[in-house]
Amino acid sequence: MTDDVVEGVDPNEWSPRIAVVGGGVSGYGAARRLHTDFPRARIHIYDRNDWHHYSACGMTFALEGLYPMDGVVLHTPEEYDQMGIEVHEKVEVTGIDLERRTLDTTPGNPVRFDVLVLATGRNPLIPPITGVDLPGVHTLSNYGDGERLMAAMEGSQRAVVIGGGAIGLETAVALNARGLDVTVVEMLPHLMPQMLDGDLAKVVREHLEGLGIRVLTGMSVGRLDPSPDGRVGSAEVLGESIPADLVVISTGIRPEASLAEVAGLDKGTTGGFATDSHMRVLRTGEPVDRVYAIGDCAEVRHAILGRRTLSPLASTAFYEARTIAHHLVDPTYEHRPVVAPAVVVIGGLHVGGVGVTEGGGAHFGLETWGVTASGLDRSRYFPGADLIHLRLVGDAGGHIVGAQAVASRDVNDRVNLFALVISEDIPAERLVDMERAFSPPVQLLADPLVGLLDEFIGVRDALRD
Amino acid sequence: MTDDVVEGVDPNEWSPRIAVVGGGVSGYGAARRLHTDFPRARIHIYDRNDWHHYSACGMTFALEGLYPMDGVVLHTPEEYDQMGIEVHEKVEVTGIDLERRTLDTTPGNPVRFDVLVLATGRNPLIPPITGVDLPGVHTLSNYGDGERLMAAMEGSQRAVVIGGGAIGLETAVALNARGLDVTVVEMLPHLMPQMLDGDLAKVVREHLEGLGIRVLTGMSVGRLDPSPDGRVGSAEVLGESIPADLVVISTGIRPEASLAEVAGLDKGTTGGFATDSHMRVLRTGEPVDRVYAIGDCAEVRHAILGRRTLSPLASTAFYEARTIAHHLVDPTYEHRPVVAPAVVVIGGLHVGGVGVTEGGGAHFGLETWGVTASGLDRSRYFPGADLIHLRLVGDAGGHIVGAQAVASRDVNDRVNLFALVISEDIPAERLVDMERAFSPPVQLLADPLVGLLDEFIGVRDALRD
Repeated sequence: MTDDVVEGVDPNEWSPRIAVVGGGVSGYGAARRLHTDFPRARIHIYDRNDWHHYSACGMTFALEGLYPMDGVVLHTPEEYDQMGIEVHEKVEVTGIDLERRTLDTTPGNPVRFDVLVLATGRNPLIPPITGVDLPGVHTLSNYGDGERLMAAMEGSQRAVVIGGGAIGLETAVALNARGLDVTVVEMLPHLMPQMLDGDLAKVVREHLEGLGIRVLTGMSVGRLDPSPDGRVGSAEVLGESIPADLVVISTGIRPEASLAEVAGLDKGTTGGFATDSHMRVLRTGEPVDRVYAIGDCAEVRHAILGRRTLSPLASTAFYEARTIAHHLVDPTYEHRPVVAPAVVVIGGLHVGGVGVTEGGGAHFGLETWGVTASGLDRSRYFPGADLIHLRLVGDAGGHIVGAQAVASRDVNDRVNLFALVISEDIPAERLVDMERAFSPPVQLLADPLVGLLDEFIGVRDALRD
Repeated sequence: MTDDVVEGVDPNEWSPRIAVVGGGVSGYGAARRLHTDFPRARIHIYDRNDWHHYSACGMTFALEGLYPMDGVVLHTPEEYDQMGIEVHEKVEVTGIDLERRTLDTTPGNPVRFDVLVLATGRNPLIPPITGVDLPGVHTLSNYGDGERLMAAMEGSQRAVVIGGGAIGLETAVALNARGLDVTVVEMLPHLMPQMLDGDLAKVVREHLEGLGIRVLTGMSVGRLDPSPDGRVGSAEVLGESIPADLVVISTGIRPEASLAEVAGLDKGTTGGFATDSHMRVLRTGEPVDRVYAIGDCAEVRHAILGRRTLSPLASTAFYEARTIAHHLVDPTYEHRPVVAPAVVVIGGLHVGGVGVTEGGGAHFGLETWGVTASGLDRSRYFPGADLIHLRLVGDAGGHIVGAQAVASRDVNDRVNLFALVISEDIPAERLVDMERAFSPPVQLLADPLVGLLDEFIGVRDALRD
């Protein structure tokens, strides 16, 4: 079960039985990738639910009304069957025999596998608040949640969203767009603390308030109270009773890795499956040959923090599926440590981040500092020129370790640029000397990023003196 | 006049006389940059015209009607005077005494300089066609040209644009938007040969034809014929007489470096001022201390071709101005060889390129090859998902040496990403392993770039075998 006894396979000759546990973004993504790369493989997806291959990231925009909820369904099980990928819905995997390489399933008989992909996902983290089990209290963690929330919006007037992260805010915007009075309650001092530092979070807050959404930060919901009909009626925050006939809890997730106990696999400090650098699961510290965990249930290495972390992004799952396919062919192939570039669109505002925030870095013992700049995103005489807000985070060595952007557009590719800069540890003075394309409709000649990089270099040099 | 006798200056103490020759994008850009970095400097701009600081790249969109022509004027001479930058309009520099460090000006007396910036720009390249001097034949090389063309569009019905490069096509779109029947004639086999290879140029062609613009490639205008009123009346192309009461010539530029002869400065093979790696001009091969040439009149080093080239982009001029400011403080500071990322917007279609094309590389003796892919630019269920066309060019060593993109948006930052990749020589397998931010409204999870990079690696490895 170590690298030296395993050889890579020939993609066109090899015909393994591949079992994928979990029918979410990462499970379906892995099945499709492996199907493409190993055309002779027999692939089975086991999903304890009956939700088809859908885009979880697309649900909030369906809630907002941009398209019907089933627009996010990418493929049906029938389409998979036609491709040659067998989908077993409402089938739960209850056990793994790693010696015999079989899965116990309910209902069903044990099934054999040559390759196993654990993509069991996550569960919403529900805070221990009185009243969280009242009718009218929702989470948005899977397709069924989306359908239920879509139905619940009808006839609701007031909503409280608990949690000011990306999904919470996208959901708040959707509820607001559907005509509900919305209040967002975030426990930490500013919105989107995973992605942004305070100064850029302020821009998001002002945007939401401009839409008519009430934002409370540094506060917790103490209690959810029922209305006379037995459904949720209000949320208590610092003594204030905020009326709410709909509550959405979006306070984070925890990995669903309960199969680890069943199969004797290692879990990391995050609660997710421990993995090696090839995304293989570990048993008492040793990698298990051709058994992988990916997606929200699996730990990955963080490129900046150097520690195991969770990266519950669809994009991370996409790259993990890619890693499995590569690793089966080339046993030396490693999954790259994550910098987790992320972008979300919140009521038309594009918000992105990559690497660590100043606050997040400090939380993990990294000495961090940051610089922020705002400027026009295209020539001032061009119709629609708008502000873009940028932030860079440095470490004690002067490396760029994080970048953030908030603007009405063009955030994702700036985040992608910095994913490369941070991954490849490109110094700020190399980046600032790099030419940038200019055309009045798309970018300012003196792009705000250039000034920000100059400032970054100035602060860095001053810190060194 | 060599580096070892020159020391850097203290930006806050130094109070030089700085003369800038030329009132275009690069001249005004240099003046502003030096004014900002050296607050005690006395800066004089000598412009033989009376056009103020304007954005040349913005003129075609004014012609199209997106804003008035004077919207592209960024600052007036009066505003410069208030900043402390003196603008001398209609003053021609006729001589340079490099020993005395003075300029001869007409009208005016000789003026002294400590630092000289030559930003004399370019002239349009006029092909030797019979009839090019007829009334109704225009170029679009400076603000005066823009005003004249704007006036000429009124009452014109049919236009021929000679030259299918970026400016020619933006102008063709503007004329089309103003209701003229437009024919574009490009001598080379496909449009935009400087920026694109044939497969991506085809997308541009189809877009223009969709707008109702006629496109002729691989053909030349043989002759311009007058109408009875003595103005241009038609253009002859391969025996066909194409009616045209307005003709725009956009067949390239040549650097305006006639001061080189006057001052005994070196010119390169391109006809531009020869420069060293600090953008200093050369005299019999030796750099002249604190005399720089930038913009369209100056040669730069090309990062891929390793030769002297012209890079007549506003963005190149911006970085050259930055280089002068840095070099005055730190005599070791070098201008980075250019990869010339460029983007233009042609009737809503965004077109970008960086590095070399396959054809351009081959022209200069580089062994080049390329791969192309098209795919959706966002999740297929998201309203407005559209195609993006991408191309990568490799050299014999398997390095990425060029990238091209054509799409309805999001081209400039992809070009900027590849400016970094090419400049830093980041291998394709590093880039393809890099996570990319995902959100349904802004990018596909399996972005077409990922598949294209995989294909690039496959072709590269096959070429190596």
